[in-house]
Amino acid sequence: MFTVGQAKSRGPYAKTATRQADILRAARDSFADRGYASASLRDIAERAGITHAGLLHHFRNKEELLAAVLAQRDAEEWQEGRAEVDGRSESLGRYLVDVLLRHQKSPELMRLWLELAAASSRPDHPAHDYFVERYERSRTHLARAAHEQAAEGKLREGISPEQAALLFQAVLNGLQVQWLLDSRIDLADALNAFLELIRAPSDP
Amino acid sequence: MFTVGQAKSRGPYAKTATRQADILRAARDSFADRGYASASLRDIAERAGITHAGLLHHFRNKEELLAAVLAQRDAEEWQEGRAEVDGRSESLGRYLVDVLLRHQKSPELMRLWLELAAASSRPDHPAHDYFVERYERSRTHLARAAHEQAAEGKLREGISPEQAALLFQAVLNGLQVQWLLDSRIDLADALNAFLELIRAPSDP
Repeated sequence: MFTVGQAKSRGPYAKTATRQADILRAARDSFADRGYASASLRDIAERAGITHAGLLHHFRNKEELLAAVLAQRDAEEWQEGRAEVDGRSESLGRYLVDVLLRHQKSPELMRLWLELAAASSRPDHPAHDYFVERYERSRTHLARAAHEQAAEGKLREGISPEQAALLFQAVLNGLQVQWLLDSRIDLADALNAFLELIRAPSDP
Repeated sequence: MFTVGQAKSRGPYAKTATRQADILRAARDSFADRGYASASLRDIAERAGITHAGLLHHFRNKEELLAAVLAQRDAEEWQEGRAEVDGRSESLGRYLVDVLLRHQKSPELMRLWLELAAASSRPDHPAHDYFVERYERSRTHLARAAHEQAAEGKLREGISPEQAALLFQAVLNGLQVQWLLDSRIDLADALNAFLELIRAPSDP
């Protein structure tokens, strides 16, 4: 249920993938504009230029659609991040600052991600496996970057790459909660302060 | 709606406060045991030794009860924290490690707090003001401790007390999300690593 159609073949599969992409775009806009609670499948179907029944053929309910929307946005950023960073550990921090600033433009989607991450920690939640895997993958990725940083002598002494990854991930989530509750908070400044904390002081 | 009855006077007020405390205790147990979704007002009323109608006299619905349960748990810890720490900045970090370890015993309550913190960031959410105030108060408290730490030369150079407070709060929330999704994560170790990061290196 959390795979986003990416069929490349022609024929019905390609059509399904296109249709799903249309629906997800419509749903993302609808959630962002109206808020998740007020968004309706009818409105989303209309935005996607499809019938209500047609939409239900692809997604059974709003919850399933929400998870797919967040997974798609996440997959896009993941791809983009890999391309942009490409092994340069220093760039990952900067890239994530950019991502966070971009997320500020859609606070409802940011909020929905955080709500779902917490809710999905229930083992019987439909998005459980997705979020468990997603957070593990993210930590692995961050830890790899921190290992490279350490190999270059740029990780602060006393902290392990695994601890740095765990804390980085925590800071990303935790800062968003605070910003959602108080938009005066400067996310970029706080994140940069954290990056400074884990960076080894450069020799004079 | 988020005030927890603490009337000290005799008569009907004291009775109300006692009754409310009974209900909140019953609700906390029910949420922790069965999970929020499965807990019912009927079960909670039964645990509290009160009728269903009697419960509805105090709390209109399960959502209101949940917010009161979390607020009560929070208020208890807040009181306790103030007593324990009492101006010694170093103790605050250790106290919060203890709180986090205690929260691990009730993962459902931990999860509900995180879900509600995110959900309540919607300005029309009934718990909005509570969480906005709560997070601001917490940051103020942490910043005060960081200021004291700085005055004693124990805060790492380059980070401001406000940044340290913001990041500390972020780490607390963000680590809990990760632990809920993967219980192999060592919360105390990660939190201590963070405390080490913001602490000025002691002179040899």
